[in-house]
Amino acid sequence: MGIQYTLEIIGTFAFAISGALTVKDREYGDWFAACFTAFLSSIGGGTLRDVLLGSYPLAWIKDINLIYAIMAGIGATFLSYRYLIRLKRTLFLFDTCGIALFTIVGTEKALGMGVRPEIAALMGVFTAVMGGVIRDVMTNEMPIIYRKEVYATACFAGAVLYLVLDYAGAGRNFSFLAAAILIIAIRVAAVRYRWAVPGFFR
Amino acid sequence: MGIQYTLEIIGTFAFAISGALTVKDREYGDWFAACFTAFLSSIGGGTLRDVLLGSYPLAWIKDINLIYAIMAGIGATFLSYRYLIRLKRTLFLFDTCGIALFTIVGTEKALGMGVRPEIAALMGVFTAVMGGVIRDVMTNEMPIIYRKEVYATACFAGAVLYLVLDYAGAGRNFSFLAAAILIIAIRVAAVRYRWAVPGFFR
Amino acid sequence: MGIQYTLEIIGTFAFAISGALTVKDREYGDWFAACFTAFLSSIGGGTLRDVLLGSYPLAWIKDINLIYAIMAGIGATFLSYRYLIRLKRTLFLFDTCGIALFTIVGTEKALGMGVRPEIAALMGVFTAVMGGVIRDVMTNEMPIIYRKEVYATACFAGAVLYLVLDYAGAGRNFSFLAAAILIIAIRVAAVRYRWAVPGFFR
Repeated sequence: MGIQYTLEIIGTFAFAISGALTVKDREYGDWFAACFTAFLSSIGGGTLRDVLLGSYPLAWIKDINLIYAIMAGIGATFLSYRYLIRLKRTLFLFDTCGIALFTIVGTEKALGMGVRPEIAALMGVFTAVMGGVIRDVMTNEMPIIYRKEVYATACFAGAVLYLVLDYAGAGRNFSFLAAAILIIAIRVAAVRYRWAVPGFFR
Repeated sequence: MGIQYTLEIIGTFAFAISGALTVKDREYGDWFAACFTAFLSSIGGGTLRDVLLGSYPLAWIKDINLIYAIMAGIGATFLSYRYLIRLKRTLFLFDTCGIALFTIVGTEKALGMGVRPEIAALMGVFTAVMGGVIRDVMTNEMPIIYRKEVYATACFAGAVLYLVLDYAGAGRNFSFLAAAILIIAIRVAAVRYRWAVPGFFR
Repeated sequence: MGIQYTLEIIGTFAFAISGALTVKDREYGDWFAACFTAFLSSIGGGTLRDVLLGSYPLAWIKDINLIYAIMAGIGATFLSYRYLIRLKRTLFLFDTCGIALFTIVGTEKALGMGVRPEIAALMGVFTAVMGGVIRDVMTNEMPIIYRKEVYATACFAGAVLYLVLDYAGAGRNFSFLAAAILIIAIRVAAVRYRWAVPGFFR
């Protein structure tokens, strides 16, 4: 519990920062928009997962620390966004670690509620990517998952690896780590080598 | 159960095809987009209905065959989209039968949960049309129900007919068939004779 | 109960009118669009609140009078929209009283379900503003809360005041009235003196 919980709080904090930064240079870049967008980005995915699974109370309603982590992320962005924006690589890494973590946490939570592994993998991907999708839909942008880079697909691959290892009897910590590394590796390679998901229509 | 279940699986399959085909000629027409859109189109409406009714587990979480039907629809689209696209009329008919079926199934499910008939009719319409709406909202298109043709209105008429016949004591199969035929007839006539819902503001 | 219930019905009626009027001068301004938009505007926020809290059955499924209030609002709009449109100030006041009322009702409902005050304040704001947001997202407009005026922020201020007064032991009616007046005052002043939420990025 200890390590994973710490990671979740850090993930929420990091997603709040990347959420707040997305309203930069928009005409609606005010305090309210920054807070609302940070909020949507960091807990939208987990909220959708919990609503689809019927898992109440929702994570952020049960544990107020998630709200405080978001507020800390907003505060950090406000105080040091000039510095943060220059850290493009760091931010990308934060986001990548965030989706890796959220994918596996989401998959595990769904499994724990007794759903089939296929559904658990979907829920893991939703946890990781749907916060960004909700944020994009709200501001009339093409959702991140429809843009070319390998994004949700990396999460899906990690979720599947986790489930396979879990089924094969690998220890939980090993499965967790292996799946996270796979997601991060695919995502980093995709950006570096401009991988794209293959076209559906030939 | 047998016939209706078979119809639901076929409806899900057909909606997945029409969903996957909508990403054709979009810049984001990759495998991921095709799968995600097929998924949203076919189960978005039923998911919204179940979430609004608090009916858990959701249909596609309880019955994995719905997921497999979607995957089959995606596979069929991939293998034969050149052929499918030429079948515009067939596809239109598939979609029309799909919304007719989903409207009545959704209305029945809501009734079975003890809600009032007015609410059941709304839930039937949501089941049929909200999958397409969610798909359109995600990709920044004007949702299908806001375009001119008679679409959701046909579903609503069918749901009302079903409820009236049910209330009048007609047998379930008769009510089902009559309502489905009404929806299909209105929709076909609307396209053929360019019917439009009357303007609200004179 | 008596007075609050009456107010809720009136609020729903008023939100339905402002919802139906938003499709004026749109190319999709038909009967269906007017009804659907009125429906979304008036109960979208409360629905989201109830789904997030896991509070079933949803308000409008439990109490059919809310649906009838919406239908009455649609009918009133149809019969007298020429007149209503000229009443811009009256409509603005209706909307303002509506969000004030919905904010406090939503906050109270969440509190009554045992959530923390921070969450209750969020739920109050959601109740008031998310109906309009869902409506805007559906029709591909920038959601109202991202536009410059002080809107959701006014609701948030009112929710916080309500919670502070409640915590301090002020009577419920006094807290209700004080919070509503604060929301209305901020909103009116914001429009009159062109207040804007301060920019997040300096």
